[in-house]
Amino acid sequence: MNDDATIESVRDRLRDFAVARDWGQFHKPKNLAMALAGEVGELLAEMQWLTDDQVHERLADPDTRGAVEEEFADVFLYLVQLADVCGVDLIRAAHAKITRNDGRFPPLEASS
Amino acid sequence: MNDDATIESVRDRLRDFAVARDWGQFHKPKNLAMALAGEVGELLAEMQWLTDDQVHERLADPDTRGAVEEEFADVFLYLVQLADVCGVDLIRAAHAKITRNDGRFPPLEASS
Amino acid sequence: MNDDATIESVRDRLRDFAVARDWGQFHKPKNLAMALAGEVGELLAEMQWLTDDQVHERLADPDTRGAVEEEFADVFLYLVQLADVCGVDLIRAAHAKITRNDGRFPPLEASS
Amino acid sequence: MNDDATIESVRDRLRDFAVARDWGQFHKPKNLAMALAGEVGELLAEMQWLTDDQVHERLADPDTRGAVEEEFADVFLYLVQLADVCGVDLIRAAHAKITRNDGRFPPLEASS
Repeated sequence: MNDDATIESVRDRLRDFAVARDWGQFHKPKNLAMALAGEVGELLAEMQWLTDDQVHERLADPDTRGAVEEEFADVFLYLVQLADVCGVDLIRAAHAKITRNDGRFPPLEASS
Repeated sequence: MNDDATIESVRDRLRDFAVARDWGQFHKPKNLAMALAGEVGELLAEMQWLTDDQVHERLADPDTRGAVEEEFADVFLYLVQLADVCGVDLIRAAHAKITRNDGRFPPLEASS
Repeated sequence: MNDDATIESVRDRLRDFAVARDWGQFHKPKNLAMALAGEVGELLAEMQWLTDDQVHERLADPDTRGAVEEEFADVFLYLVQLADVCGVDLIRAAHAKITRNDGRFPPLEASS
Repeated sequence: MNDDATIESVRDRLRDFAVARDWGQFHKPKNLAMALAGEVGELLAEMQWLTDDQVHERLADPDTRGAVEEEFADVFLYLVQLADVCGVDLIRAAHAKITRNDGRFPPLEASS
């Protein structure tokens, strides 16, 4: 697996980025949580007046896809930074939650 | 690298989970974007009346840490599902954005 | 006009409510902004898996309408409190913005 | 009371605004809820890297106050429109919720 394909590779670049700009002082949990909410707001704004089909068209068009991808990136970058500052392992927490949900929401019966 | 430690492992379990419950019909971009915003709201609610120090105390205490981790997981799960439905590679988009930000926000000069 | 029908009547009750519980110490701009985002998340959660028609059905049914109205109330209560703490007059700011938008987005031509 | 000082006056101008631009077709509950979340995100973005004191400074400075007020306005405008489309009376819902909260959160005892 390519090293660049891991969350850790993103987290590490973000750490270096913040250190190089002395931004660590701003990267407190509540600030980052607000930034995360702000970026989610921007992601929603990309879709709010569209139908789901139009969202897919926008993603299929190279001229408009980039803006949506960039909003995804912004949300993810702040989530990774917030988790880092809080010492939370997103992947591990996610697997634990899926396992818990598996018990809470029983799957449909397979028909025989 | 452990296979479980990748975003793809989370994405794949979420796909199976949705198929087993016939939830794919609900997993349209706008619905998932709203669910993402909803979970971010719950994550913020865990922190809103606390100081940053109190957030860290909550995370350091095994009795209260779990609830916060679960909110992180919920945010991440919906972000992974939304990206999956939209065909967006979060890691790749993140690296592209960090590279772009590198040009936009010059680092501090290293003092000699 | 009924005195109870004004934003000021809501704001004044919220002020008294906070004083009676010594909650003013928590009602700082950033905390209230996070609480606002949290409540908006809960309002979205009421709608996220529904179609717009189903949202209207939920509002038309006395058994389910209350929960939605309560989420609206929560959003509004935090918005009023945040505006109060920030010294912002919501109605005045709203009228100013509509006037500005009037210039930015020209109306359709009336056909003759 | 000045007619312009009511929520109804804002709601009515927004109705006219949408009709004049044929925007009613977009003003469905879920779209407006997403727009509301988007604007709340922008309001948070105004505060995210500031301390609470710096938020107050920004509001006290005529050069920077306008941008914050405009974000408040945007949040309020979408909340009013969403409530209008859903047939929810914000003021009435707010009073009902405060009354309910009064029972849930007993005030501090007055010392004798």
